Amino acid sequence: MHLSELSHPNQLHGLSVYQLQQIARQIREKHLETVAAIGGHLGPGLGVVELTVALYQTLDLDLDKVIWDVGHQAYPHKMLTGRYARFNTLRQKDGIAGYLKRCESKFDHFGAGHASTSISAALGMAIARDSQGDTYKVVAVIGDGALTGGMALEAINHAGHLPKTNLLVVLNDNEMSISPNVGAIPRYLNKMRLSPPVQFLAENLEEQIKHLPFVGDTISPDLARIKEGMKRLAVPKVGAVFEELGFTYMGPIDGHNLEELIATFQQAHKHIGPVLVHVATTKGKGYEVAEKDQVGYHAQSPFNLATGKAIPSNKPKPPGYSKVFGETLTKIAESNPRVIGITAAMSTGTGLDILQKHLPDQFIDVGIAEQHAITLCAGLACEGMRPVAAIYSTFLQRAFDQIVHDVCIQNLPVFFCLDRAGIVGADGPTHQGMYDIAYMRCIPNMVMMAPKDEAELQRMLVTGINHLDSPIAMRYPRGNGYGVPLMEEGWEPLPIGEGEILRQGDDVLLVAYGSMVYPSMQVAEILSEHSIEATVINARFAKPLDTELILPLAQKIGRVVTLEEGCLPGGFGSAIAEALLDAEIAVPLTRIGIPDKLVDHASPDQSKAELGLMPSQMAERILKLLSKQPSPVSV
Amino acid sequence: MHLSELSHPNQLHGLSVYQLQQIARQIREKHLETVAAIGGHLGPGLGVVELTVALYQTLDLDLDKVIWDVGHQAYPHKMLTGRYARFNTLRQKDGIAGYLKRCESKFDHFGAGHASTSISAALGMAIARDSQGDTYKVVAVIGDGALTGGMALEAINHAGHLPKTNLLVVLNDNEMSISPNVGAIPRYLNKMRLSPPVQFLAENLEEQIKHLPFVGDTISPDLARIKEGMKRLAVPKVGAVFEELGFTYMGPIDGHNLEELIATFQQAHKHIGPVLVHVATTKGKGYEVAEKDQVGYHAQSPFNLATGKAIPSNKPKPPGYSKVFGETLTKIAESNPRVIGITAAMSTGTGLDILQKHLPDQFIDVGIAEQHAITLCAGLACEGMRPVAAIYSTFLQRAFDQIVHDVCIQNLPVFFCLDRAGIVGADGPTHQGMYDIAYMRCIPNMVMMAPKDEAELQRMLVTGINHLDSPIAMRYPRGNGYGVPLMEEGWEPLPIGEGEILRQGDDVLLVAYGSMVYPSMQVAEILSEHSIEATVINARFAKPLDTELILPLAQKIGRVVTLEEGCLPGGFGSAIAEALLDAEIAVPLTRIGIPDKLVDHASPDQSKAELGLMPSQMAERILKLLSKQPSPVSV
Repeated sequence: MHLSELSHPNQLHGLSVYQLQQIARQIREKHLETVAAIGGHLGPGLGVVELTVALYQTLDLDLDKVIWDVGHQAYPHKMLTGRYARFNTLRQKDGIAGYLKRCESKFDHFGAGHASTSISAALGMAIARDSQGDTYKVVAVIGDGALTGGMALEAINHAGHLPKTNLLVVLNDNEMSISPNVGAIPRYLNKMRLSPPVQFLAENLEEQIKHLPFVGDTISPDLARIKEGMKRLAVPKVGAVFEELGFTYMGPIDGHNLEELIATFQQAHKHIGPVLVHVATTKGKGYEVAEKDQVGYHAQSPFNLATGKAIPSNKPKPPGYSKVFGETLTKIAESNPRVIGITAAMSTGTGLDILQKHLPDQFIDVGIAEQHAITLCAGLACEGMRPVAAIYSTFLQRAFDQIVHDVCIQNLPVFFCLDRAGIVGADGPTHQGMYDIAYMRCIPNMVMMAPKDEAELQRMLVTGINHLDSPIAMRYPRGNGYGVPLMEEGWEPLPIGEGEILRQGDDVLLVAYGSMVYPSMQVAEILSEHSIEATVINARFAKPLDTELILPLAQKIGRVVTLEEGCLPGGFGSAIAEALLDAEIAVPLTRIGIPDKLVDHASPDQSKAELGLMPSQMAERILKLLSKQPSPVSV
Repeated sequence: MHLSELSHPNQLHGLSVYQLQQIARQIREKHLETVAAIGGHLGPGLGVVELTVALYQTLDLDLDKVIWDVGHQAYPHKMLTGRYARFNTLRQKDGIAGYLKRCESKFDHFGAGHASTSISAALGMAIARDSQGDTYKVVAVIGDGALTGGMALEAINHAGHLPKTNLLVVLNDNEMSISPNVGAIPRYLNKMRLSPPVQFLAENLEEQIKHLPFVGDTISPDLARIKEGMKRLAVPKVGAVFEELGFTYMGPIDGHNLEELIATFQQAHKHIGPVLVHVATTKGKGYEVAEKDQVGYHAQSPFNLATGKAIPSNKPKPPGYSKVFGETLTKIAESNPRVIGITAAMSTGTGLDILQKHLPDQFIDVGIAEQHAITLCAGLACEGMRPVAAIYSTFLQRAFDQIVHDVCIQNLPVFFCLDRAGIVGADGPTHQGMYDIAYMRCIPNMVMMAPKDEAELQRMLVTGINHLDSPIAMRYPRGNGYGVPLMEEGWEPLPIGEGEILRQGDDVLLVAYGSMVYPSMQVAEILSEHSIEATVINARFAKPLDTELILPLAQKIGRVVTLEEGCLPGGFGSAIAEALLDAEIAVPLTRIGIPDKLVDHASPDQSKAELGLMPSQMAERILKLLSKQPSPVSV
């Protein structure tokens, strides 16, 4: 049987181990071919091919439910659940998603994208199942990186307390998140992986304990306790932490041995209560290049399958924002030992790996633990350090309460650097960095800024590090800058709350924030071709707003358009609206941004086109607005 | 020496255990007297009197830093750090705060109010200390309830990975959060508390191991491993989980025995790396009534010290929102087994204890774990249950990403019930429920509503439970309703997105949300006395807005005022502003709500008066606005 003939995962049931190995090989080939051709996540999926095949062989997937944490490792799952034929549309507009989605397949029981949610979701389903008198199996598959996220540990605390609630947690331990894992839990897991097989020792010990002088049939209560302790020693100590937390622990087992996996899962399904199966896998398994460079091949743009090398793009690109960020921060940190960069398992993505390499003592990776990261920053700030938290906009959502409660209420100078703010492209709705303007703007004491290009990012970086009066945040987009000249040193900080005028015109006022500044200039060009002259303001700050600059111009010009790459409810445009209302300036204001809906996966430009955020579309909209407007002040 | 003579905690250094016991007794007396007279937290502080005294005796508090988790147990700390004389101003306006605040005392190194933050903050300080070459001690004191919060576990994962970073975590294990603790971690701690003193057994065992046949001096590598295992058995197994996670574990020790506490802390200070001292305390210690009813005496309004009974208020009060919520939900759940109430360690505060008592199978307390709570709800909703998450507005901030990522992106019908939304009074800035309108309004798919009174809360409760199309949220204030008639059954759901007109007038349109509806009617009365006739709309929904009702009236009347008990940036008033702008209706709009600043502790009415939110103040503001306005449309 070939993988392409599989339309339902239950068709795996009848297959022999040899046949399953063939299926696994075919999955791996398709996985590699597809990602090499069109890009996507590579290492995570290759690591769980056998895990997926073996698990599905032991389940009835018409009834049983598997919840994949994050979902970037679920490509094998997708191929086994009816999406093989369409697999080449992966992460493309209208194609299959790079993560799981409930609306994409009945086998996607819970969508994700962020880490550490699977055990909570699975436990909810298990409780619902029991409440409704059903008996299907619920399985969460979670990585060792995701396991250090606080909510996963909260879920374990809860599940371990429910001895009658059947729940299987499969711990996919590849010793990595995107980067090597951090923390005591991964170290503990690693210790277990390194343990020799203990079965023999245990059996042997049990035998010997029987012959100990104080272990008889008639023993005192004290000695009974000792005997109990000895017996617990005799059982492999591996997994003691999980056992103490109420889970039946099984493993570690070889995550690439189908027979061992199947036997273990079959045994696990017989247990009552929460069970954790610890599976040791290798990220990138089966593709040597990826096994050797597990960080580099976590996810990939198109590459040559034979060499593993990225396919060079046609034209050289300007440096990415993350790289400029990382390099500039490193230079600043070199001369200021109080500067310390904090990341939550995203050192490469945020460019902090540059800091890590050059100044390891001024770098902290806390693992997938955004909440802890931010309150750690608060503690660092209390003692005079200059913490720079580099976290994607979407992941910083995890630390919202820490931003409010630990940083802003105490008015501590923590510097939030929100990478991937705005439209992110192929990662889709779970990763869009579209809420941060709204969710940060409501918090007192926060200063918020966004650079128009990579050179302004450098200046804002210095601005943020120099700013000791309050928390401060900078948002910047995914992708490449504009190729503007960068300074090697001597960046001048910007005055807090001051914007700049980039272009002057009397017909309409465009107030743009961050990544929408250059597009606004393009809009102004188009408008000018239609004899509409726009003033363009680079707001630089969303909070505090440069009301001294913006309001008089708004009143004078009489027609305002705001442009932002963020959600419209409560966003930058609303901030301008609030300022106009508070100043009792009644001018028409049109807010351009991301409307109040989810943004699906597609290329960034495709998404922007769908949302009407391409310069030509925005210009057209403004032209229409102006043409139907009888006079600049009234409506 | 009397407590009142202590101006600096280092004065404890010279005192004998007997003298320290006297100090402890005086702290307890003052604590009891004060809370009995003016209300406040009772059980938490009484439980840590000896812990505080002993810890401070072993520290140099001019250098060393103690971070108290939550801070409601820090009354003894306050009395020992110069605030004894002012202690009777506790939680009063301009008096000392009920939690810790950095601006209140140099000994308050990190403020809190929410749980589980202390280890992260302390670790940040410890890393800053080491980076700056300092050597002071950093101590986090955290409760067993707070330890189950995910971010505390994230911090332990991080700290346990830093063997050279000195950090003392004092685990104040009183077996309770506000309610009895939930989960595998508390159960594990409890097991340790119940262990007999194991020192003797351990020593005895060590002796006996020496005589085991296979433990000699010349042994094989396999047997060496066995011997190592046996030795680890010989050391008390208590604390193994913490030891595996990289902490040196000490305890459990008697938290009311000063000598034991001092000796243990002194020993702990000598260790390198992270240390956890497990202290067994009794909540309410020393006050029999509080020891016996630990839930009831967690916090108290004024009570008779002799009897422990609450001092009855002068006039009977209408039922509180939480009580109406709990009772109504219980009645609905009785006839709908799919309804399930979820709380995060707040069953009494939210009124869910009523559901817990009557329908325990339809109630889940996950402990202090808001993130898990919400994704658990998402899992429950996937499988057809009707999860009702009852969480305070301020605590739901902890689950912001789960609301976005797990609930709203998947459009799952989870019902969020936000208690304590708005001004909360004595708990101060960390507890103000003022951000929820802004932080929820930016999320696609969310429906948001707020009842004007307790009868409308009943209808909205049915509305939310019946609403299967999307997530839905209801916010309601702390405190008592208006005493309006309640229905025992047969509540009629409200149409989603429909408001109501409560009063008609041509001069100004008041659009009020939730708790501001009744005050708006009072405002309208006052305006009427000045011959200004207002139309008052009870918006009911902040999302979707009833634009069909509001916009034509706004256009017709030409002057709009919004009233909300939430922060102004991005709040309800901004939603109305956005709707007016999108409809190109240019009318002056004044947004009344909580300005963009922190709101300190005080009585709710005092806070509202400071913020200009009392009806007379709002009416005065509107009268001023109208008097200077030349015509309704232009400015």
